[in-house]
Amino acid sequence: DLKEYFRETEAQGLKGTRQAQRESYGWWRRLRWYQKPTIAMVNGWCFGGGYGPLFSCDLAFAAEEAKFGLSEINWGILPGGGATKVAQELMPFRKAMYHAMTGENIDGKTAADWGLVNEAVPLAQLKDRVTEVAKVLLAKNPVALKATKDAMKRVGVMSYDDAEDYLIRAQEAANSYDNEGRKEGIRQFIDEKSYKPGLGAYDKDKVKA
Amino acid sequence: DLKEYFRETEAQGLKGTRQAQRESYGWWRRLRWYQKPTIAMVNGWCFGGGYGPLFSCDLAFAAEEAKFGLSEINWGILPGGGATKVAQELMPFRKAMYHAMTGENIDGKTAADWGLVNEAVPLAQLKDRVTEVAKVLLAKNPVALKATKDAMKRVGVMSYDDAEDYLIRAQEAANSYDNEGRKEGIRQFIDEKSYKPGLGAYDKDKVKA
Amino acid sequence: DLKEYFRETEAQGLKGTRQAQRESYGWWRRLRWYQKPTIAMVNGWCFGGGYGPLFSCDLAFAAEEAKFGLSEINWGILPGGGATKVAQELMPFRKAMYHAMTGENIDGKTAADWGLVNEAVPLAQLKDRVTEVAKVLLAKNPVALKATKDAMKRVGVMSYDDAEDYLIRAQEAANSYDNEGRKEGIRQFIDEKSYKPGLGAYDKDKVKA
Amino acid sequence: DLKEYFRETEAQGLKGTRQAQRESYGWWRRLRWYQKPTIAMVNGWCFGGGYGPLFSCDLAFAAEEAKFGLSEINWGILPGGGATKVAQELMPFRKAMYHAMTGENIDGKTAADWGLVNEAVPLAQLKDRVTEVAKVLLAKNPVALKATKDAMKRVGVMSYDDAEDYLIRAQEAANSYDNEGRKEGIRQFIDEKSYKPGLGAYDKDKVKA
Amino acid sequence: DLKEYFRETEAQGLKGTRQAQRESYGWWRRLRWYQKPTIAMVNGWCFGGGYGPLFSCDLAFAAEEAKFGLSEINWGILPGGGATKVAQELMPFRKAMYHAMTGENIDGKTAADWGLVNEAVPLAQLKDRVTEVAKVLLAKNPVALKATKDAMKRVGVMSYDDAEDYLIRAQEAANSYDNEGRKEGIRQFIDEKSYKPGLGAYDKDKVKA
Amino acid sequence: DLKEYFRETEAQGLKGTRQAQRESYGWWRRLRWYQKPTIAMVNGWCFGGGYGPLFSCDLAFAAEEAKFGLSEINWGILPGGGATKVAQELMPFRKAMYHAMTGENIDGKTAADWGLVNEAVPLAQLKDRVTEVAKVLLAKNPVALKATKDAMKRVGVMSYDDAEDYLIRAQEAANSYDNEGRKEGIRQFIDEKSYKPGLGAYDKDKVKA
Repeated sequence: DLKEYFRETEAQGLKGTRQAQRESYGWWRRLRWYQKPTIAMVNGWCFGGGYGPLFSCDLAFAAEEAKFGLSEINWGILPGGGATKVAQELMPFRKAMYHAMTGENIDGKTAADWGLVNEAVPLAQLKDRVTEVAKVLLAKNPVALKATKDAMKRVGVMSYDDAEDYLIRAQEAANSYDNEGRKEGIRQFIDEKSYKPGLGAYDKDKVKA
Repeated sequence: DLKEYFRETEAQGLKGTRQAQRESYGWWRRLRWYQKPTIAMVNGWCFGGGYGPLFSCDLAFAAEEAKFGLSEINWGILPGGGATKVAQELMPFRKAMYHAMTGENIDGKTAADWGLVNEAVPLAQLKDRVTEVAKVLLAKNPVALKATKDAMKRVGVMSYDDAEDYLIRAQEAANSYDNEGRKEGIRQFIDEKSYKPGLGAYDKDKVKA
Repeated sequence: DLKEYFRETEAQGLKGTRQAQRESYGWWRRLRWYQKPTIAMVNGWCFGGGYGPLFSCDLAFAAEEAKFGLSEINWGILPGGGATKVAQELMPFRKAMYHAMTGENIDGKTAADWGLVNEAVPLAQLKDRVTEVAKVLLAKNPVALKATKDAMKRVGVMSYDDAEDYLIRAQEAANSYDNEGRKEGIRQFIDEKSYKPGLGAYDKDKVKA
Repeated sequence: DLKEYFRETEAQGLKGTRQAQRESYGWWRRLRWYQKPTIAMVNGWCFGGGYGPLFSCDLAFAAEEAKFGLSEINWGILPGGGATKVAQELMPFRKAMYHAMTGENIDGKTAADWGLVNEAVPLAQLKDRVTEVAKVLLAKNPVALKATKDAMKRVGVMSYDDAEDYLIRAQEAANSYDNEGRKEGIRQFIDEKSYKPGLGAYDKDKVKA
Repeated sequence: DLKEYFRETEAQGLKGTRQAQRESYGWWRRLRWYQKPTIAMVNGWCFGGGYGPLFSCDLAFAAEEAKFGLSEINWGILPGGGATKVAQELMPFRKAMYHAMTGENIDGKTAADWGLVNEAVPLAQLKDRVTEVAKVLLAKNPVALKATKDAMKRVGVMSYDDAEDYLIRAQEAANSYDNEGRKEGIRQFIDEKSYKPGLGAYDKDKVKA
Repeated sequence: DLKEYFRETEAQGLKGTRQAQRESYGWWRRLRWYQKPTIAMVNGWCFGGGYGPLFSCDLAFAAEEAKFGLSEINWGILPGGGATKVAQELMPFRKAMYHAMTGENIDGKTAADWGLVNEAVPLAQLKDRVTEVAKVLLAKNPVALKATKDAMKRVGVMSYDDAEDYLIRAQEAANSYDNEGRKEGIRQFIDEKSYKPGLGAYDKDKVKA
């Protein structure tokens, strides 16, 4: 119920407001650092409050018909819940500013052009495209995937030199969980010659054989 | 007069140079944090020295025929007055570097593609387009607009967690100036059902009725 | 030999690994801050390990037929050697994440669209295009070029105010090496009227005449 | 039980480890941003795992007899759970490094000298001193206290200009909750002349009279 | 008049408040980057509003009898005007937090211990000590002094590598204004052997002889 | 020879200067990230150029009689080679500024008070004290020591949340090299009860028995 959503938290005063923020920001934080890859599949409407979880997902695909908007300005507030930051992180600066100041919606295609999502496809193909990408990810080494997506999210604020160091640590940390995976990957490539890394993943199921 | 512009400040020595820098950087800083929304409308030539005020404006629209350039390299200096930073902030990195190193001009359309301005339209439509956007902004809650544009400019250097906090503060600070605006916005939406935030702004003139 | 490349360093243990990292990161650092302009000309395959030197070059041009990829995930590791950082610095965030998580290759045209390189041209024109750009750069004041490219690389992590200051220092530092260049550039422009900075560079060879 | 503490989490594998980290880091985060002022009162032993909550408390007082230490190095690990960061944030750099590398304990007096806690007093006076400080804080405007302590924790990573802006926002946000408090404070000072701000707080209970 | 100070600005509404902030922050910014060295000489009371200019001065000396305080909490606000940031920059974190939360004053001696000022001396010696330091500074190369104090204020937010680069630029920028000074300094040291840099400055007046 | 030191590099022009900088900064960078712990033992004079390697050492001990100084201002330049940054990183801000602007020397005891070194002892005891600390470090797990000292140097520029993550990675990376060390440390502690981590290190030589 909309009335509930907009008024109930406020009716509980500062304590209720802070608890609601702590909870939702906590969920999105947990989603942002989720162990497995996450893909947002967006159809219909995705407004300000949805930008937090949208950003938390590693990848995002939208129907061309989907609508994205920071409508906050239309009822007289700024885009909170992290939404202003999300626009600033994902979109070119001029686009993000226009998006937040005018409150105009954009469709899925424009959302892809502006960087909010990875791609927009016709709605009829959305599920297939997301399934396809999910299958690609399922074929990869899961320890390496987690290390890769976290690294991409962490290195943005680092200097180049700090990032070089972080990537070494992150790889060695991954090795501490699954050192056999990468050795098998190299083995299949240079000994077995059964795949080419430039064209696809090694067969991770063979490692236990 | 060009001779004056290029030589007079330098003739005044270090003191004159520093005063000129302090003054122009001060003007642009003031423009950058202006209370009301600002829109740059660019036709003709916009060179290095103009990139400071261009960046200070919240939004920017250009004629397709306009020319933008960092011509500094052509007379043997680097793009100062903040212009190198402006290119780096607004453009993809490779584009910014090419722009500064070659000194080649780009037209309004390319400036929009590269992120320097929001949009480029044929010159004949420029004033109409800017007027249209200005009218959209005039219909918004001005306290929320100022909070929104400032937030977009501030959150870029913050961590995600710091940005979440900043946005809460900035909204509450806005509430201290106009708490009635957002309440009216919600009232018109969920009680009166007179507008949909996803499609346009609440009628802010009703608040005093 | 691929076997050597993938196994020999590891066979030397931690000491060998660290030495190899120190050496290659050192070369790329040196390339990143090279005195003269650097242009990468990419044809064929450019994979993860190549992203470090690619990023170190001031400009980069690719054949449309070139292939770029972070194939690390395909043999079970994350893109190290700075490659994750390079993707994050040059590409829109969603593109960088997709690129690293799926390990899918992109061709030169897409690499240009995503910001990894400046431009992609048909292979047959690649050398000509790079030569053309190199000639443009050769006509510029070399002290100003070095100051410009370094400034573009340094100001990214600075606040706007710090960047304004840095650009003043960097110009004055350049003046300490070649104060005559910029004076000649202004002289040819406003006294001699022999060129227009908005359209091309001053004749730097005249300075000694 | 020590055996449990050191082995049980690890026995649960990656999932259990991550859950334990998420939970404890979550508690400390919540403590760090707690609505009311928090004061750590430390006697006995305070080791690595305790540095997280110690840092989360706004103020910290120790018995001179207390012992503080980063003993992690003594069983072959680095000080995790944020402890390395805590030492780096609170102590001079040389002290923090010595503290972490040698694993030597320091007593309460040294902990105060090095910045880990506010003050060290003889154990017999510890509770009295903490109670005294708590009473001082109880006499202050609680909205202003929360704004003050949060601001002190946030401005560290900001540029001076960003901090000036943040402090304005944070004050106005506080005004949105309790605008009467500060007005009463000024009234008692300049109209009533009943206290001097340089020597003590206004009587906040009068505001409702 | 206190009434004026506390109420007149507010009576002018948002516009007046913003203008007052812009003006005072502008003065302090100008003081912070002043061409000549600046020394604060503090006696009597120095409260929150005074911390901005105090921080802007390159050096600060206080009478042992002086009183420093962030009394804002005592009338129900947070220490604005940059004062929270000043305490966080200059004092150990625990001291800064205590200082802001309790509103307790400290004397000059404690202010020196906590890093707010350079030194505290008995009031009777304050002017002499400041004069002595001023004379030391007067004997130095003024271009180098300005470069040194600015560098100290700028490098804090930079990575070590960026700072190395900045210091090279800043020196070369200084050379563009006074390249003869440092050459004379080296000449007097290694040719003339008329002073030892470890014990005092070269005679800068000789440079014109 | 002093003449050589001050003039020869400059005589080689820009190329020679840049090469000399690259070489010395490279040595100090390598020292800063050295695999084994490093301890500076300082007697006699330690001036500006020495601050780079001094900072690179993990720990530093000085004779009380030693002299430290940034004498650059005395011959008309700013403290380069990273020295300004070193003072800013290690000393309270007011001390660092005074140190650089006045060029006054400080003795070992003051250097310890101001944070430049860990401790100052009478010269006669210097070697013994350093040997004592070296022996303490020799008894620790070397993989954990390297991880600890690097972490302390890296977390300074990170947000608290990023630092928590980094410390987890760094520990897991250490585990990939020596997972047995920490298990043995815990075993000796909770099974064998042969040492207490709060009072000293586990016997690392037993791990191979």
